[in-house]
Amino acid sequence: MEYRKIKDQDEDEESAGDLELSRGKPNSAGMMNNVAALGALSGVAPQWKRKSMVTLALTILTSSQAILIVWSKRAGKYDYSVTTANFLVETLKCALSLLALAKIWRTEGVTDDNRLSTTVDEVIVYPIPAVLYLVKNLLQYYIFAYVDAPGYQILKNLNIISTGVLYRIILKKRLSDIEWAAFILLCAGCTTAQLTSNSDHVLQTPLYGWVMAIVMALLSGFAGVYTEAIIKKRPQRNINVQNFYLYVFGMIFNAIAIVIQDFDEVANKGFFHGYSFITVLMIVNHALSGIAVSMVMKYADNIVKVYSTSVAMLLTAIVSVFLFGFHLSLAFFLGATVVSVSVYLQKFGKTPR
Amino acid sequence: MEYRKIKDQDEDEESAGDLELSRGKPNSAGMMNNVAALGALSGVAPQWKRKSMVTLALTILTSSQAILIVWSKRAGKYDYSVTTANFLVETLKCALSLLALAKIWRTEGVTDDNRLSTTVDEVIVYPIPAVLYLVKNLLQYYIFAYVDAPGYQILKNLNIISTGVLYRIILKKRLSDIEWAAFILLCAGCTTAQLTSNSDHVLQTPLYGWVMAIVMALLSGFAGVYTEAIIKKRPQRNINVQNFYLYVFGMIFNAIAIVIQDFDEVANKGFFHGYSFITVLMIVNHALSGIAVSMVMKYADNIVKVYSTSVAMLLTAIVSVFLFGFHLSLAFFLGATVVSVSVYLQKFGKTPR
Repeated sequence: MEYRKIKDQDEDEESAGDLELSRGKPNSAGMMNNVAALGALSGVAPQWKRKSMVTLALTILTSSQAILIVWSKRAGKYDYSVTTANFLVETLKCALSLLALAKIWRTEGVTDDNRLSTTVDEVIVYPIPAVLYLVKNLLQYYIFAYVDAPGYQILKNLNIISTGVLYRIILKKRLSDIEWAAFILLCAGCTTAQLTSNSDHVLQTPLYGWVMAIVMALLSGFAGVYTEAIIKKRPQRNINVQNFYLYVFGMIFNAIAIVIQDFDEVANKGFFHGYSFITVLMIVNHALSGIAVSMVMKYADNIVKVYSTSVAMLLTAIVSVFLFGFHLSLAFFLGATVVSVSVYLQKFGKTPR
Repeated sequence: MEYRKIKDQDEDEESAGDLELSRGKPNSAGMMNNVAALGALSGVAPQWKRKSMVTLALTILTSSQAILIVWSKRAGKYDYSVTTANFLVETLKCALSLLALAKIWRTEGVTDDNRLSTTVDEVIVYPIPAVLYLVKNLLQYYIFAYVDAPGYQILKNLNIISTGVLYRIILKKRLSDIEWAAFILLCAGCTTAQLTSNSDHVLQTPLYGWVMAIVMALLSGFAGVYTEAIIKKRPQRNINVQNFYLYVFGMIFNAIAIVIQDFDEVANKGFFHGYSFITVLMIVNHALSGIAVSMVMKYADNIVKVYSTSVAMLLTAIVSVFLFGFHLSLAFFLGATVVSVSVYLQKFGKTPR
């Protein structure tokens, strides 16, 4: 109920200005000078500017993440435990959030909005996204019994549709007809861009594989939309505090995953076995893009997040041409065209609401 | 100038009613009973209804045309002269136009709008589309030196863009931003639907091949748009008279093509050598879809024509699944989705003009 009200006010954000800011610290525009980037983003920039900044950051970070994966594959198979890396990503995000908070406390003092102490009522919802992601990651191991890796990449585009549907249902935010059309185009365009000569295998996916792919898409979409709901429920709350609680539970559930999946390996070979410079780079990148996702949830929404990561996929492919001598297919050009038109159509989507 | 004026009035056709009808024969709605389909279409149906009818007819005829081609290929290679078939198509169209005119003369009498006699000023433009199509057909032989047949099918989608651009330039009719976006989607979607595992060969097309493909797209687009300009320049003129002149010049130029390309074969083996039942079906179908194209030019426009034939391409593929056991590719589903969204977006395109 509270959330719905906030969303409605948010519709004409350009004129109404930033809800959070106008409550907590009015006329503080002059204070923004040497605050760290993280602090600045949660600080006093105008909403559209902050929205653009976090979206751009997410796009670039997601894109470079994929490039790092290609690079690490080229450098040879990595033999570290993925669960330990995931745990470190959560830990790093946690640490960065605390660091940003410390800076804010120093410049602005501790307020109701940025203090770490919390209520059960506030914190009880934070483990849910972490649990959802854990379940999704476990399912991921089983789906490969039914679908090959390139097929999985293609089926993952169902996430786009599931995010749109759940965004509509859970956040009760209407998408205009043109926004829906653009969303379908985004999904079709991304899938087209990823077509290879073997893609038709996906059509032979058994029913069970389809069901799992759809369940995974729903889980992933739900986790994203639910995170947005948590973050937006308390718009006045500092994003770094909200991130801290999200990531603390991320740490806990990833620690459980280490015990379940990689206990023996970690016990025998050590926590950091198989780590290399590129592993560290990937962890840092993953952590930063995780924070960027939260920021996009706070200052934009899941729709923007999906567009951002889709455009990142195209950017990755284009950059890979120069970095790794990849060839772009005709399907890529066609898919990229459709995605571009989809992004362009967003311009018209807002009008008829 | 005169044309521009008519186009402007045409913008709100729904309210203003049919320009042609309100001039020539007002309140004649009661007269429509047993007139032949052709006569009826050029008769008194409300404009939107007539527009839908001719568009539907064009879609079905174009779709069944492609199916006849597949059928004839299955039945074995046809060894008739293509130029004689083209000549017969033009002759049949001419005959059907005269037949429709005869019916109209009998029911409505000969008027200024439906008489066959004409002026040099009116008739002088009619050979131009026929010449353009002849040049395009001749070029078609040369482009295969640079592009293979499936590649040519893909490059033919450039027609969609060239039609849009020439429609804008020659007919001076604005397309809204959404209409342009939809048009680009139509082109990308059609191409995607036709992707095969060998489609990437198209990207290796030499520059000369690209230039020829673009020139052919421009010729084809120009012929279509110019035909619309001719037909719409005199909106009060009966469409069957306009068709008669278009097709008479079609006959003449196709007769020239027979002499140039197939004179020896026709002289030795006879005009109808190699004809079969399916050849006759194809000629009849081709003639009817030709007339449907003219009708769409008269009562709708080139944009509607392009959409109609694109949707027909998708229909053909779907029908072929049932008729010939074809398999649809993932690319087809994605392309069909994009084309469907493109058609859907037309709904929004008109608003912001």
